[in-house]
Amino acid sequence: MSAFKTQAEQVMQQLQELGTISQSPQYLDRRYLTAEHASANQLVANWMHQAGMQTWQDAAANLWGRLASSAVPDAPRLILGSHLDTVPNGGKYDGMLGVLAPIAVAQLLAQQAISLPFHLDIVGFGDEEGSRFGSTLLGSRALVGNWPADWAELTDENNITLAQAMQNAGLDFTQVHQAAISNENLLGYIELHIEQGPVLEHENLPVGIVSAIAGARRFEFTVTGMAGHAGTVPMPLRQDALAAASEMILAVEALAVKNQVVATVGRINNKPNGVNVIAGQSQFSLDIRSASDAQRDEALEHIMLAMEDIAQRRGVQLHHQQTHEADAVSCDPSLQSYLRDAVEQNGIRPFTLPSGAGHDAMAMAHLCPVAMLFTRCDKGISHHPAEAITTADIEVSLQVLFDTIMAVAEPTKQKEVM
Amino acid sequence: MSAFKTQAEQVMQQLQELGTISQSPQYLDRRYLTAEHASANQLVANWMHQAGMQTWQDAAANLWGRLASSAVPDAPRLILGSHLDTVPNGGKYDGMLGVLAPIAVAQLLAQQAISLPFHLDIVGFGDEEGSRFGSTLLGSRALVGNWPADWAELTDENNITLAQAMQNAGLDFTQVHQAAISNENLLGYIELHIEQGPVLEHENLPVGIVSAIAGARRFEFTVTGMAGHAGTVPMPLRQDALAAASEMILAVEALAVKNQVVATVGRINNKPNGVNVIAGQSQFSLDIRSASDAQRDEALEHIMLAMEDIAQRRGVQLHHQQTHEADAVSCDPSLQSYLRDAVEQNGIRPFTLPSGAGHDAMAMAHLCPVAMLFTRCDKGISHHPAEAITTADIEVSLQVLFDTIMAVAEPTKQKEVM
Repeated sequence: MSAFKTQAEQVMQQLQELGTISQSPQYLDRRYLTAEHASANQLVANWMHQAGMQTWQDAAANLWGRLASSAVPDAPRLILGSHLDTVPNGGKYDGMLGVLAPIAVAQLLAQQAISLPFHLDIVGFGDEEGSRFGSTLLGSRALVGNWPADWAELTDENNITLAQAMQNAGLDFTQVHQAAISNENLLGYIELHIEQGPVLEHENLPVGIVSAIAGARRFEFTVTGMAGHAGTVPMPLRQDALAAASEMILAVEALAVKNQVVATVGRINNKPNGVNVIAGQSQFSLDIRSASDAQRDEALEHIMLAMEDIAQRRGVQLHHQQTHEADAVSCDPSLQSYLRDAVEQNGIRPFTLPSGAGHDAMAMAHLCPVAMLFTRCDKGISHHPAEAITTADIEVSLQVLFDTIMAVAEPTKQKEVM
Repeated sequence: MSAFKTQAEQVMQQLQELGTISQSPQYLDRRYLTAEHASANQLVANWMHQAGMQTWQDAAANLWGRLASSAVPDAPRLILGSHLDTVPNGGKYDGMLGVLAPIAVAQLLAQQAISLPFHLDIVGFGDEEGSRFGSTLLGSRALVGNWPADWAELTDENNITLAQAMQNAGLDFTQVHQAAISNENLLGYIELHIEQGPVLEHENLPVGIVSAIAGARRFEFTVTGMAGHAGTVPMPLRQDALAAASEMILAVEALAVKNQVVATVGRINNKPNGVNVIAGQSQFSLDIRSASDAQRDEALEHIMLAMEDIAQRRGVQLHHQQTHEADAVSCDPSLQSYLRDAVEQNGIRPFTLPSGAGHDAMAMAHLCPVAMLFTRCDKGISHHPAEAITTADIEVSLQVLFDTIMAVAEPTKQKEVM
């Protein structure tokens, strides 16, 4: 059995064990600054130790492990990692794979006594999902030094503030800036993550290289027509809000396809929502994403125009409000090419895809070059107990990460030598 | 001032007074067998007395008034009426107009000492809306002798059974059959009602003659697709339940127009209904009506085929369940022609329209010929505090009812003479 296969099996076992640490007895639910967060950090720290790493926790309760470079005195850092929190009723792989797989790679490097020209740092972020306090990426944003002061007053579902939760965990909200790291001597951030989509499965590939993390914009639309009796208002005299909304939802779909973005109406609330009443008002959401902000915004413009046309033709009113906007983050071309070469070296067709979901790499991009490798997941399902990956795909992921780290080491070494 | 105008003003005043009798302090809400039902019956009975009528309450708490025929010993009956109950947060005219306007006509007949060859019976049904016990038309179905035994166990929102509610009101569920009336010597049933739709307003007419009460069928559809992450599932790989439902809703609309029926999707419930989640399941209702059952069912067949096509093309599953079916009821041609002549005599263009809403006349059609006259209502609004009609339109309605009764009297008289 190859060393990678052995390590892949160990990672799979660790993922199962880590997946039992939950604040709910019914399902996996592990949120920021809970007792279960502390237990998870403790368990993963043990595995880091076993892999030959030093460990520490920063001022934002992120867990760190370092395979220190013995080759270079003031060695730069290369960071690998992801997050250790979950959504309520989540899966065992989203986030955790990107922490445990690098530890296994570090263990292999240590076993083989490979000396790197940089510190290999592995981070397990305490919060990416935002499940406890609403705001997302709390862990990685602490590294960037990007916590606004008013976050002290963010509350969880039990009305505990973030400041209080930190105090309960032995931390201090006012000292979170100590978790920020310097962008000097920082080679980059590489995040392994399950795809959370069906593309790799569709392409029959175990891994894929991420080109960019899509920028998303979200809106709430309100269509106001005229409620009426389902039996007594003839079709030509209607201003049916739900029929108008339906036509708009189909326009979103058609124009997303045409403009090569993804756009989704996931939520609709209809009033009065009675079997025998023509809808007077329909509200619906729009989530639109693209690896290119310009492409996304152009598609959005077409969608808005189409919606206004529909509203005018049907004699209904249309209002919209933007509720979220995040720009796209491009992955570093150089780190991408290392990943691509490593994939190819392992006999796999290198396939590049955008990430439609947000990740810690979005925050880390404020500090350093970032890159991401996706691992195929079953049917693209995530944020659900049915989330699944195979040990064989973990093995490929370990090989690619290993070879990528070695490739990053090569020019760094050369640079040091020259 | 004409007698009809004076009477119309009195009817309008009475409607306002009756509209204050409510079980809710905030809005009009008057349900079957409540203390407010009893108060309403008492108030309307007083007005019947003032109009020169005998009054009684039947075994189903329907209120009756009779302007007795003195001309003929065993006189037949002509029944006019409608209902005295309301929906919660309802209007003051739906139902009540069809009870109070005939009383005003009876008063005119009595004042003018006109002797009719039939008893003019006016009924105020205790329940048409079904707001208290779910089942509708309780009052008129009692006249038809059409109460199933298991209705004893129907419950209201406080878990009071219909049998208990009758006992509380001094009635006996087991004796409700005494409310049934014979179809012998029954000339017909004429119901005046607000239109509850915008057609007469659109046609600029105060009244309209009803051709038929539409038959309705109702369904619940369930579209099952595949939930997914709004950012990570490319458009071509989606099975978006809400997009599929939207296309079906537009098909319902288009095919209703094409097949000249009314069809409405009024309710939609979407799962998981998250901003960033592709819908996995969408459930929606369908209500389809026509004055012709055959036309309705043909339209329905086209709609079902279109929906199945959409489901197949989009790779989603479609299930449906019928939740309601009622056949159309045709209005009596002879009574319709009396109404039509009376409208024309009053210098108004006679306009015939179907009733999309259900009415007591549907039950009464099991006993005798039925006809309906619609009075224009503001913007077609009903079942809402904004429900409104004008005194001028009441005046026209009184004139048409008066002339119709006189016309029914003519051939009856002749028949008696010959």
